[in-house]
Amino acid sequence: EMTSTEKEVIAAEKELRRGFASLEVVQKDPSIPVYHIYLNRPAQRNALNLSFFSDLPRALSLLSVLPSARAVVLAARGPHFCSGIDLSALQSISSLSSLNPDPAASAVLLRRRIVPLQTAISAIERCRKPVVAAIQGACVGGGVDLAVACDVRFCSRDAFFAVKEVDLALTADLGSLQRLPRIVGYGNATDLALTGRRISAEEAKGMGLVSRVFDSPTALEEGVDLIARGLAEKSAVAVIGTKAVLLRSRDQTVEDGLDYVATWNSAMLMSRDLVEAVAAQMEKRKPNFSKM
Amino acid sequence: EMTSTEKEVIAAEKELRRGFASLEVVQKDPSIPVYHIYLNRPAQRNALNLSFFSDLPRALSLLSVLPSARAVVLAARGPHFCSGIDLSALQSISSLSSLNPDPAASAVLLRRRIVPLQTAISAIERCRKPVVAAIQGACVGGGVDLAVACDVRFCSRDAFFAVKEVDLALTADLGSLQRLPRIVGYGNATDLALTGRRISAEEAKGMGLVSRVFDSPTALEEGVDLIARGLAEKSAVAVIGTKAVLLRSRDQTVEDGLDYVATWNSAMLMSRDLVEAVAAQMEKRKPNFSKM
Amino acid sequence: EMTSTEKEVIAAEKELRRGFASLEVVQKDPSIPVYHIYLNRPAQRNALNLSFFSDLPRALSLLSVLPSARAVVLAARGPHFCSGIDLSALQSISSLSSLNPDPAASAVLLRRRIVPLQTAISAIERCRKPVVAAIQGACVGGGVDLAVACDVRFCSRDAFFAVKEVDLALTADLGSLQRLPRIVGYGNATDLALTGRRISAEEAKGMGLVSRVFDSPTALEEGVDLIARGLAEKSAVAVIGTKAVLLRSRDQTVEDGLDYVATWNSAMLMSRDLVEAVAAQMEKRKPNFSKM
Amino acid sequence: EMTSTEKEVIAAEKELRRGFASLEVVQKDPSIPVYHIYLNRPAQRNALNLSFFSDLPRALSLLSVLPSARAVVLAARGPHFCSGIDLSALQSISSLSSLNPDPAASAVLLRRRIVPLQTAISAIERCRKPVVAAIQGACVGGGVDLAVACDVRFCSRDAFFAVKEVDLALTADLGSLQRLPRIVGYGNATDLALTGRRISAEEAKGMGLVSRVFDSPTALEEGVDLIARGLAEKSAVAVIGTKAVLLRSRDQTVEDGLDYVATWNSAMLMSRDLVEAVAAQMEKRKPNFSKM
Amino acid sequence: EMTSTEKEVIAAEKELRRGFASLEVVQKDPSIPVYHIYLNRPAQRNALNLSFFSDLPRALSLLSVLPSARAVVLAARGPHFCSGIDLSALQSISSLSSLNPDPAASAVLLRRRIVPLQTAISAIERCRKPVVAAIQGACVGGGVDLAVACDVRFCSRDAFFAVKEVDLALTADLGSLQRLPRIVGYGNATDLALTGRRISAEEAKGMGLVSRVFDSPTALEEGVDLIARGLAEKSAVAVIGTKAVLLRSRDQTVEDGLDYVATWNSAMLMSRDLVEAVAAQMEKRKPNFSKM
Amino acid sequence: EMTSTEKEVIAAEKELRRGFASLEVVQKDPSIPVYHIYLNRPAQRNALNLSFFSDLPRALSLLSVLPSARAVVLAARGPHFCSGIDLSALQSISSLSSLNPDPAASAVLLRRRIVPLQTAISAIERCRKPVVAAIQGACVGGGVDLAVACDVRFCSRDAFFAVKEVDLALTADLGSLQRLPRIVGYGNATDLALTGRRISAEEAKGMGLVSRVFDSPTALEEGVDLIARGLAEKSAVAVIGTKAVLLRSRDQTVEDGLDYVATWNSAMLMSRDLVEAVAAQMEKRKPNFSKM
Repeated sequence: EMTSTEKEVIAAEKELRRGFASLEVVQKDPSIPVYHIYLNRPAQRNALNLSFFSDLPRALSLLSVLPSARAVVLAARGPHFCSGIDLSALQSISSLSSLNPDPAASAVLLRRRIVPLQTAISAIERCRKPVVAAIQGACVGGGVDLAVACDVRFCSRDAFFAVKEVDLALTADLGSLQRLPRIVGYGNATDLALTGRRISAEEAKGMGLVSRVFDSPTALEEGVDLIARGLAEKSAVAVIGTKAVLLRSRDQTVEDGLDYVATWNSAMLMSRDLVEAVAAQMEKRKPNFSKM
Repeated sequence: EMTSTEKEVIAAEKELRRGFASLEVVQKDPSIPVYHIYLNRPAQRNALNLSFFSDLPRALSLLSVLPSARAVVLAARGPHFCSGIDLSALQSISSLSSLNPDPAASAVLLRRRIVPLQTAISAIERCRKPVVAAIQGACVGGGVDLAVACDVRFCSRDAFFAVKEVDLALTADLGSLQRLPRIVGYGNATDLALTGRRISAEEAKGMGLVSRVFDSPTALEEGVDLIARGLAEKSAVAVIGTKAVLLRSRDQTVEDGLDYVATWNSAMLMSRDLVEAVAAQMEKRKPNFSKM
Repeated sequence: EMTSTEKEVIAAEKELRRGFASLEVVQKDPSIPVYHIYLNRPAQRNALNLSFFSDLPRALSLLSVLPSARAVVLAARGPHFCSGIDLSALQSISSLSSLNPDPAASAVLLRRRIVPLQTAISAIERCRKPVVAAIQGACVGGGVDLAVACDVRFCSRDAFFAVKEVDLALTADLGSLQRLPRIVGYGNATDLALTGRRISAEEAKGMGLVSRVFDSPTALEEGVDLIARGLAEKSAVAVIGTKAVLLRSRDQTVEDGLDYVATWNSAMLMSRDLVEAVAAQMEKRKPNFSKM
Repeated sequence: EMTSTEKEVIAAEKELRRGFASLEVVQKDPSIPVYHIYLNRPAQRNALNLSFFSDLPRALSLLSVLPSARAVVLAARGPHFCSGIDLSALQSISSLSSLNPDPAASAVLLRRRIVPLQTAISAIERCRKPVVAAIQGACVGGGVDLAVACDVRFCSRDAFFAVKEVDLALTADLGSLQRLPRIVGYGNATDLALTGRRISAEEAKGMGLVSRVFDSPTALEEGVDLIARGLAEKSAVAVIGTKAVLLRSRDQTVEDGLDYVATWNSAMLMSRDLVEAVAAQMEKRKPNFSKM
Repeated sequence: EMTSTEKEVIAAEKELRRGFASLEVVQKDPSIPVYHIYLNRPAQRNALNLSFFSDLPRALSLLSVLPSARAVVLAARGPHFCSGIDLSALQSISSLSSLNPDPAASAVLLRRRIVPLQTAISAIERCRKPVVAAIQGACVGGGVDLAVACDVRFCSRDAFFAVKEVDLALTADLGSLQRLPRIVGYGNATDLALTGRRISAEEAKGMGLVSRVFDSPTALEEGVDLIARGLAEKSAVAVIGTKAVLLRSRDQTVEDGLDYVATWNSAMLMSRDLVEAVAAQMEKRKPNFSKM
Repeated sequence: EMTSTEKEVIAAEKELRRGFASLEVVQKDPSIPVYHIYLNRPAQRNALNLSFFSDLPRALSLLSVLPSARAVVLAARGPHFCSGIDLSALQSISSLSSLNPDPAASAVLLRRRIVPLQTAISAIERCRKPVVAAIQGACVGGGVDLAVACDVRFCSRDAFFAVKEVDLALTADLGSLQRLPRIVGYGNATDLALTGRRISAEEAKGMGLVSRVFDSPTALEEGVDLIARGLAEKSAVAVIGTKAVLLRSRDQTVEDGLDYVATWNSAMLMSRDLVEAVAAQMEKRKPNFSKM
């Protein structure tokens, strides 16, 4: 008989096969526990439409459950990573809220529409597995919101970045103003957010926005596949713990973060994986970590 | 009949024309809504004296009100941006507090003198319009406190920076120890603050302390004018919102910052400027944003 | 008759002479108030064993008291700075906690063992004097925890860094996940912590992890000696204040940090050292600061 | 044609009619926009089983959408409000996690089971409408977690309260240790949580745990119905805003809370309801607020 | 010749004599360093009009400077303390902002009007001297915002309290939602803020909202005079420090608060007042503390 | 052979037998795992001298290790609990710091003396076992600092309380200003701290400062013994967890607290004690929890 955990896995796999309107989700090689989520509206330069905002959290929540997904790559079909929020999505949100003749009621309604969009992007952080962004071409507006919510970012030399919401007369509200300063420093972040200027892959690397620049989109794909596979081969307990503790510590004092990780490790330190890692190191062989 | 807002504007303009002991405040071109605040004691290398600490918040509070000030440049007359706090100011503060024979009462009094100096510098953040620093020559001690309170910083190749308070036997108390680490990272900030060492424009750029290095003071002036004009042409609602949300989010968790911007945008998203921006983009023309 | 402070100093000097199992603590030149703490198990590539975790806080607490220690260098004997936590220490911790047949009691016990290890590393921050790391060769795992707790870091060109806990199936719990993001930015920190990849001295410099790269271990030693001497020559009140305020402000909002430093300086601003610094500057001579 | 908001309402009403395994959700009088959620397992003294933890957030999320639900009463069928978590739920959680032979993997799995239980309780806070608890008989263990997540609490004289998790050898993890101290003060909360002692309705009132004690369960029902109706007659914009701002301000500094409510009200202050309230007050009649 | 501090005092006294549109500020007895601020629009039940919001911070800032004001009583002329914000003030704020046809610009403008009102109330906390509220009759809406910003509150038996903003279709934005929960507990605060219900002096005492209930307005006046005189006779350094540290600690962790007060007292502990207090205690006489 | 944990226990017991200058530490009945710490300078009304500040943390750290100490009672010999800090201690601190002619160096030194006094009081919170205060007679000044650091407080009818530091011209710096507001509410705390007024046992109970008032010192002793025994009979894992989570959650947002306890329980939920508690409950017998 199946445990409830096994049932959950089977249900997730089935659901995954049903597909997504705005995304393609694939495990390229069944023997490698890595999944790719592709933004899949290349004709629209992967502009984020309303389906995207329900597809992404759904996909990530399914991958969260699958033992065959130990690392996730967020990439894009077509020459561009993402050109930002789709104007149709923006209009749909605004028209919904403008129906109410009372401006305060409209505002309450509008707030109720913005929060789920934020939650959709934050699903990348809630996903317990590491999510790596692979970026080519344009990464602007909502694309930056998406990228900075990932754990690590890589790009090809043709990539460029712009927090361009300000040019649409908008205050960016999907996370760039919160996450970017912690990644590139507060000065670089204000510069980018106020001027909306475009930066190259190299400048992005210099600021710490991406961890490495690959020579071409193809090199990017191969390089990121290798990195993701590397993550997938590590101890799942350690990778999940490292992601969770980094995120929690980002928003806490150093001391609170230390107390948190001490508590975390009082449960998670004594793993079979640790025993295996120590043994493998002594026997100078590759460790064979347990599935999760 | 004039509204109270209009009266406020006229009063501010009048007050501005009365001038400032330590500053020069000018709108270079009446058709361009950019104001320049110049530190204007070049003979003293723009050392910050007591008038400066009342002039600066007064100037910024007036510009906060003016629709013709959509961006502010903080620059300096003479070859140096700012050589730090004026020794006379320091002496005035200390003698005031040493008058009281009770050391505790002296300390209370001294504290009461330090806080307004901090408040004067923080007026740059309280100003709702973006403030861009243009830095040439020396930017040391109080000059760094001033620079790091600005939203974005640019400099010329001859600029140099030093958190030199430690060499005056002082713990810097006007903001560098708080703002610098968020801009250049905690390691660079401790290095600069403990050693007091001087860094070049290039090193400052590498750390993220300035966003760009111009080849000469003249190039700096022209370049920053262009950038400020660019900011002034954007939607005022979006620029005000972006500055306000960045500042608030700097001091909050990511999640609190997201909630804050969702609330902000429930009021500020549905602007005429947004409609205009979308229309202009579709008609491939420059948008014509409303005044504020 | 001796004051209790003088007695404390004499007791600390005596205790220091008794030495440490894992460390060597020396004042190279009695006329220069700088102490060096050397990790001193070069045969084990300075792996951190259990004695280290009691030696380090003990050494730092003694140096905290000594007027002859105005700056501290944390360096290492042998070609490598530190290869991480010693497996024997790890086993000792885990076996202690696995003795209890109740997994929850084990966890409570394990937590009780982790916290003092964290406290030992954090002793570097609690030490009121500045602590400068001089790093050559490997600085991995626990070595990074150690380095990022120092106030400033320097290395030689042969140095390399890796947050390699993840490869031992561990969630790093001695501070790297908390302190590294504030030093190199959140994106670089997640990259390093999740992939465990090794970075060179140059890459470390680019991220702000070290403040300068010296050409060789010898150049490193000489360079850091000079820097430490420079710190030791500054006003002790100012250096202690700068370190304390930077650390407190790291974990607070900008505004709380400003209030804190105003309060600090209401006591510490009016020092004899300030008078001396001003006089020395006017007389264009070296200041002669008081001992503490 | 229906707007998407109208469709959402109809879907929610339909879903509500399908019912819940552990709850009964009713609108007693179609002309009064108040819903009651009854814990509905009186034979088990309303012990919280696994369905409860999915039923409650589902019910609240549906009511969040309904204009006919402007206030929610959380009450219980039978003589007792709630006897705590069902042992079957506890066993199900623990057996799930004990399946994995690796204790660390078990812990990760267990953590993954605890979080959704917490989220289910916190759904009361996420529900934008006010939720009022009506408590008779036993309110112990998980019952207290539930009660303290409500906005206001009322009880009958026969009610009693106990944070009894400690007697099950548990550290309460569904919110009592977080929310109770803010309601009754830290001293009362530690007393209750460490001793697990039972307090009467009167003592609960004295501590501020309940706002009023009614003489009997019948009086409680009538009294709370009246109060809920009162809430339902108020301006929805004002009630939603008051709940949201109170919750956000609970976890922030006073100053951050003031900034938050200023931002909130920049959108929500200028409502039709305000105009109506002022008019009604001048005309000395009952206001007629808009639906939401 | 006068010191700048003496000049400041004389200027403040002069300014004080010019009076206030909405307030009466008096020192009842020149030999007792206590000032009374009376809300002075009894015909309007002391409703808070626009002048009030500029009068109050001005009055408090003047008293902050006067050595003859060592304690401040906030009281009211007429039978009622305060009936809340004046509708004219509310209309003035809303009409100002509704002038702009762009709803987002209106919101920005409205926000700019709300913040100074909050700042006016918070001036009570910024005033370094203790402010004691003496409350008779109605204390509702804005009256509660005012009362909870005071350091201590007393009332007469006829007093009653209501957070009645919700009945004006408003989310209270002048501090009640932030300060009340810390005074009466979160449960009592939500009850009062959501229901808007009126509570008696006795109930207010039971919740900790007032510290004592006097039998009549006359008894209140006499009682509070005595208490204020008691405060005025204490060491000014100690009273200023206690107020400042309590306020700062309210918004910090216990540990941060301890660090803050240690820093505070490193400056303020060693006062002449302490020496005098110890001497007076030994000589069993009243201490004679220094002026400030 | 003994484990290192067993050795630690034996060393602690030996050390305990050596006794303390200012305290008496006893296990009244060897069969009951409760220890009493008595303030033991009744002739000085248990004024806190310098030995006390080293004795208390030492005693608590020893009891932290002992399995035979599952609950701790903090009580006092003689008619009074504690009359506050000893003037000799105060003088010793101040004379130490006044030795240095530089006021800033004095302040640094003084700060270094205050912090360990705070740490000594906070040792009550760091002690993992619950600490219950039993208070008769005077509990003033430092006595209140001591009492509010305990987990729960009980008193006899003759007890009285006063935060009397203000009357010594001091800003209380040992924790009352931080902990008291969370226990009795911010309004009651400011009242007590600013006026220094004395409150009776009954008033203390009404504010939540004590959990129960016993009729006499003898009744207090017996009552608290019973309560402590009750705590000692509970599951140690649950009691330690409850204390730790309450303390951590006090200084965090509700959400952070929930995440923390979920992490805590991922390690500590699945205890043998839980199995035993469930079994005992089903078999309607007293549980027999494991030692720790």
